[in-house]
Amino acid sequence: MIDFNLTEDQLNLQTRTKTFVENVIIPFEKDPRCTSHGPTDELRLELNALAKEAGLFAPHVSEEWGGLGLDHRDMAVVFEAAGYSPLGPIALHCAAPDEGNMNLLAKVATPYQQDIYLRPLAAGETRSCFTMTEPSGGAGSDPNMLTTTAVPSGNHYVINGRKWLITGAKGAAFTIIMAVVPEGHSMQSGPTMFLAPMDSNGIEIKRNLDTMDSSFTGGHAEVEFKNLRLPADSVLGEVGEAFRYVQVRLAPARLTHCMRWLGGACRAHDIASKYAKTRHAFGKAIGHHEGIGFMLADNEIDLQQSRLMVWWTANELDSGRKARHESSMTKIAVSEALFRVADRSLQILGGMGMTSDTVVEQIFREVRGFRIYDGPSEVHRWAIARRILKREKLE
Amino acid sequence: MIDFNLTEDQLNLQTRTKTFVENVIIPFEKDPRCTSHGPTDELRLELNALAKEAGLFAPHVSEEWGGLGLDHRDMAVVFEAAGYSPLGPIALHCAAPDEGNMNLLAKVATPYQQDIYLRPLAAGETRSCFTMTEPSGGAGSDPNMLTTTAVPSGNHYVINGRKWLITGAKGAAFTIIMAVVPEGHSMQSGPTMFLAPMDSNGIEIKRNLDTMDSSFTGGHAEVEFKNLRLPADSVLGEVGEAFRYVQVRLAPARLTHCMRWLGGACRAHDIASKYAKTRHAFGKAIGHHEGIGFMLADNEIDLQQSRLMVWWTANELDSGRKARHESSMTKIAVSEALFRVADRSLQILGGMGMTSDTVVEQIFREVRGFRIYDGPSEVHRWAIARRILKREKLE
Amino acid sequence: MIDFNLTEDQLNLQTRTKTFVENVIIPFEKDPRCTSHGPTDELRLELNALAKEAGLFAPHVSEEWGGLGLDHRDMAVVFEAAGYSPLGPIALHCAAPDEGNMNLLAKVATPYQQDIYLRPLAAGETRSCFTMTEPSGGAGSDPNMLTTTAVPSGNHYVINGRKWLITGAKGAAFTIIMAVVPEGHSMQSGPTMFLAPMDSNGIEIKRNLDTMDSSFTGGHAEVEFKNLRLPADSVLGEVGEAFRYVQVRLAPARLTHCMRWLGGACRAHDIASKYAKTRHAFGKAIGHHEGIGFMLADNEIDLQQSRLMVWWTANELDSGRKARHESSMTKIAVSEALFRVADRSLQILGGMGMTSDTVVEQIFREVRGFRIYDGPSEVHRWAIARRILKREKLE
Amino acid sequence: MIDFNLTEDQLNLQTRTKTFVENVIIPFEKDPRCTSHGPTDELRLELNALAKEAGLFAPHVSEEWGGLGLDHRDMAVVFEAAGYSPLGPIALHCAAPDEGNMNLLAKVATPYQQDIYLRPLAAGETRSCFTMTEPSGGAGSDPNMLTTTAVPSGNHYVINGRKWLITGAKGAAFTIIMAVVPEGHSMQSGPTMFLAPMDSNGIEIKRNLDTMDSSFTGGHAEVEFKNLRLPADSVLGEVGEAFRYVQVRLAPARLTHCMRWLGGACRAHDIASKYAKTRHAFGKAIGHHEGIGFMLADNEIDLQQSRLMVWWTANELDSGRKARHESSMTKIAVSEALFRVADRSLQILGGMGMTSDTVVEQIFREVRGFRIYDGPSEVHRWAIARRILKREKLE
Repeated sequence: MIDFNLTEDQLNLQTRTKTFVENVIIPFEKDPRCTSHGPTDELRLELNALAKEAGLFAPHVSEEWGGLGLDHRDMAVVFEAAGYSPLGPIALHCAAPDEGNMNLLAKVATPYQQDIYLRPLAAGETRSCFTMTEPSGGAGSDPNMLTTTAVPSGNHYVINGRKWLITGAKGAAFTIIMAVVPEGHSMQSGPTMFLAPMDSNGIEIKRNLDTMDSSFTGGHAEVEFKNLRLPADSVLGEVGEAFRYVQVRLAPARLTHCMRWLGGACRAHDIASKYAKTRHAFGKAIGHHEGIGFMLADNEIDLQQSRLMVWWTANELDSGRKARHESSMTKIAVSEALFRVADRSLQILGGMGMTSDTVVEQIFREVRGFRIYDGPSEVHRWAIARRILKREKLE
Repeated sequence: MIDFNLTEDQLNLQTRTKTFVENVIIPFEKDPRCTSHGPTDELRLELNALAKEAGLFAPHVSEEWGGLGLDHRDMAVVFEAAGYSPLGPIALHCAAPDEGNMNLLAKVATPYQQDIYLRPLAAGETRSCFTMTEPSGGAGSDPNMLTTTAVPSGNHYVINGRKWLITGAKGAAFTIIMAVVPEGHSMQSGPTMFLAPMDSNGIEIKRNLDTMDSSFTGGHAEVEFKNLRLPADSVLGEVGEAFRYVQVRLAPARLTHCMRWLGGACRAHDIASKYAKTRHAFGKAIGHHEGIGFMLADNEIDLQQSRLMVWWTANELDSGRKARHESSMTKIAVSEALFRVADRSLQILGGMGMTSDTVVEQIFREVRGFRIYDGPSEVHRWAIARRILKREKLE
Repeated sequence: MIDFNLTEDQLNLQTRTKTFVENVIIPFEKDPRCTSHGPTDELRLELNALAKEAGLFAPHVSEEWGGLGLDHRDMAVVFEAAGYSPLGPIALHCAAPDEGNMNLLAKVATPYQQDIYLRPLAAGETRSCFTMTEPSGGAGSDPNMLTTTAVPSGNHYVINGRKWLITGAKGAAFTIIMAVVPEGHSMQSGPTMFLAPMDSNGIEIKRNLDTMDSSFTGGHAEVEFKNLRLPADSVLGEVGEAFRYVQVRLAPARLTHCMRWLGGACRAHDIASKYAKTRHAFGKAIGHHEGIGFMLADNEIDLQQSRLMVWWTANELDSGRKARHESSMTKIAVSEALFRVADRSLQILGGMGMTSDTVVEQIFREVRGFRIYDGPSEVHRWAIARRILKREKLE
Repeated sequence: MIDFNLTEDQLNLQTRTKTFVENVIIPFEKDPRCTSHGPTDELRLELNALAKEAGLFAPHVSEEWGGLGLDHRDMAVVFEAAGYSPLGPIALHCAAPDEGNMNLLAKVATPYQQDIYLRPLAAGETRSCFTMTEPSGGAGSDPNMLTTTAVPSGNHYVINGRKWLITGAKGAAFTIIMAVVPEGHSMQSGPTMFLAPMDSNGIEIKRNLDTMDSSFTGGHAEVEFKNLRLPADSVLGEVGEAFRYVQVRLAPARLTHCMRWLGGACRAHDIASKYAKTRHAFGKAIGHHEGIGFMLADNEIDLQQSRLMVWWTANELDSGRKARHESSMTKIAVSEALFRVADRSLQILGGMGMTSDTVVEQIFREVRGFRIYDGPSEVHRWAIARRILKREKLE
């Protein structure tokens, strides 16, 4: 039955998260350990400890692995509250790429792999990264252009390739690698996922990229695999099945991005609203100038529409559906709406909006990236259009 | 608990309405009784009979008055399905302004007034109109500019004023009049609603306006009250309370507009999608050109966001809240989104979109009006902004 | 040298045209001979006589053929002034499709053809049409899909095919036909233009389409060619060269559309501005509410940008360049900008905007079509993108 | 006469500037002396020397003061070419705020003041700043809220106040101060400009702000005046006339911003176009996907429209008109169009767009600020609307 009322438990968690972020986390936003390549691991561990203390650590992780075991609708509520500060998801250990990696490992990894990789990751002892994207010429939006290879060699695979825009690579304990097992070497071939410690011989972080955003721990790096030799049991799931697992990981991962950044955009809107009420110009508070007031109204609409799209898709996932169409629609709608909110909020602040005196400037930069990360709007629009045109009723 | 699944009853009603509209109603769209001033009453009565036969008549009316007694979420489902044809809401007798008038009369009218006015209206024997809007100089978006007066005179009121854009005036059996009882004549004064038969002495329809839209039975007229003499028991509710009743009427009325036109925009999208699949240019179906495919994707997103906003506000109303903020947000978001959908759909059809060969051309014209009717976007944005700025947390 | 100042002659013509349209033409807008299929020929001839009297008839036609012999920059000035009323270009005989046809005949027709067809057309004694567009399955945006055939038969061609959206067909004295001469029948084949009197055996107007716009004399019709037998000297220009001539006709024709509708949008803006200054709501003139005032400002910007794009492309054409890229850019930018202007102007008028009490309602409908006519925005964007990608500097 | 052809001299200067920027300046973009607070003075001086060598230094400065003495249309051509790199205007010494300060000093300063301040500034020996904007509570968009005071004291003025967002303060040799001379102290009072060396007692740079943009030499600082004691001949122009001088400075200064950033946006578009041609996905160069191709087309239109608006306003200024309305329109249109271009270009680059591997990331950040600097869009829209409503023809 159509219903938009939160449960008691959700309300409770929401309040606790909000309070925690507002009172405990936001003061850290001016901490010098927030660098242009994201918060340092030292800061992250300090925040994690605080979240554990508050009983809010790893809300998305199953109770088996030490988390709160939330479903997607619960997560929508908690992640939005956490995202109110860029540091909130770091503290709760529900930021990308770790959050998606935990989800994938819980679903696909062997018990042994889970013990080695998932257990410490879920506990916040380690971080991880996901080495999929390749520089121009390789796999970007089009996964079929994957050029990194994993050639079978005895009981091992030898991996060669170059990746970039690898979020969190610096400081990660391990990575999930996307590579192609070429045909002709073994029975099974095709795009495959591998697990590897980051300190393996053959993995080198070439450089950390300077990027416009700065909220991800470790930043975004360029990584080279040079004769990286991995034992056969490093394969995550089955050989040739990587694209299927990518979808297992991505549909929810896109959605949790929406949840977190929705919280960030709410913050920007609140800061802009407060400023619009207190800053005067031309005889009244600037918010009472319709030119500003209308921006606030549009923010409010964009935020609510985003929330509803997130909840709707979360409901689809909780109902056991794959929600690929829904998560694509939501990813486009939410990333573009939140960017508008951030952009309007910055504009309302005027010159101050361009400075780091408020967090709006950072949120603007972060949300700009979201229109590209996890599939740019253009790729999702294309996928949606194709599905529409395949519908039978159009015959 | 957050939930987006329809109940069995809703699914059942939805299917029945869809089938009815598609099989029974749409064929009437080319009926010559669909004039530039809306369907004739003869056609309306014929369609009403078919809806009664199908068990779908007056879904919003309480069972007491012969309807299906749906709540707002049910209505959201049924009205959207009905709106798939501009004639659907006419057939189900849930179109404006009658639908809102029934709602208002059920809540505010005396049993006697209900017997005289509501009973035949609910049964589809009559139509009604709502005479509020006045030409420039009088009440438009700003109700406080009401210039029509109702001067007490013994046991009567004498009403003088000029109204326009009065939907359905021509052919209506009665009207709800907004007029100001001036101070100094009686204990009570202020903006007041009155009920009056349209064939009263002192009511004259000066002309039927030529308008861009054409779906409302009776069109939109200019109406003059010249010494219209009404007995005191013609007051609807209490003297001086009209603005409160307007809100009782408008918050849901805005929302039912959203529901109906959402159905219309879905129709436009379906027609455009089908055309995009079958019409070829430059070597492939035009839908496979991203320039067109992206428009389809954006339509799909706009439609879903609109639906969610409608459901959310319906849920607020069903929870007993006034939902003024929510219905304003939804009115803006939905009217503008549906206009985009209609505009894109027309564009996809190319030259054919400009012709009445498909109903898209009409839907475009209808939906354009919706951005103005029941409060233009600008007035709602202004109201939303004011509420944001009043929030305590901004102190 | 960069310069935006009008010459004395241009200023003079501009003033005379403005005065003529304002004083003489606008009063005819309420004439009942303005039908939903455009002004009648009776009205057109009456308006033409008035324009001749005012010395403003056929400004684009060379002096040899009785016109004013203006270049494209002059035309930009005069056509904009004429377009201030939808009847202005009709009066000056510079409306589509006649204006483009005169241009084409002057450039491509034989002296004999010019004598038969161009002379009376340029004098306003006749009207003409251009039968290119075909229903779904045939040539729309993609001219290569042309299905109408012209099969050589002795010293004749036999033409069969179906056309639609043929502006001005009803009442036209002759038409320029686009048809394909199939290979194998003669030395020359390919897409070819033909001239034919509309009262020829084998030409039938099947129906006049009901369309959203209503400014074109004769409306838009569906036309059938059934064994239309034309002598070989009916070929306009050379066999197989039709696509080249289409470009000769279209680049300027697109631009003159921009000029005329720019005038219409200026009218809508003026009406909205005046209303915004005189209509009060919430304590002040609505124009002093920023929500409205900002729309006026955006109108002003859109109008000026449109004018500059038109002048720039006119300058290109006057400099002897083909200006295909420029005219595509201008067509997109101007048609979309003018639609925004019309849309905002209508919105500012509120409910009145939906009525034919002002001409804004008509201008809105007309300008909507312009985003489709002469190549929808999507086709032009596609062509522009292709040219960008072909530039050498990108190698 | 309407004309868009450049003169020989303009073409020559354009080519020389383009070549200089491309060959000489762009290589410096990766120089570590480009900091987050702009290029260092060391780098600036090095670039100035190169520009002098190329004969391109100070193109806007009159020949009397050692520049090229260009008019506004010439400047439009040269500044656009210079802006192709963020370092170009720095090199040519035509960046804000120096360029506007030179213009103001040339028009308003006494010969003595020109000798002391303008001569070394025009020669590139010094830099300057303009201390107008104040933190919340003081003068931002509304100059009437100026709180900095200049109290007469004998033959001196004593200035107290706080300024922020002062571009180039750090490293500037002198500043132009906006302060109010209170009534009652002397015959003349009101908003007044003063000249002061930055190393004066009583001027303190409190901090350099961290801002999203990074192209201005010296960054943006917070500056405090604490009992700054200036001799009476420090007044620039006359007491009480500061607002008039602000307009003298701002109308052209807004326009030169448009010119420079237009060049930057052209660069972003060129980089995106090249990438779109060479990066493949889903079977073809991404530019041949319409989703990307349409963005390129829209860029091209936005750039050309911006250029035309700039030229048009430059022509107004060169014709001796104040062009306040025109420069407001152009500032809105151009800043918003260039932001769209930068945003689309970044989007086309995908993940790479977020990195500093191309200059697009920086241009995006710079252009974002332009929608706020020199009057945010909202203030200009408001001013334009007021002028429209004052027109007599609307009476």
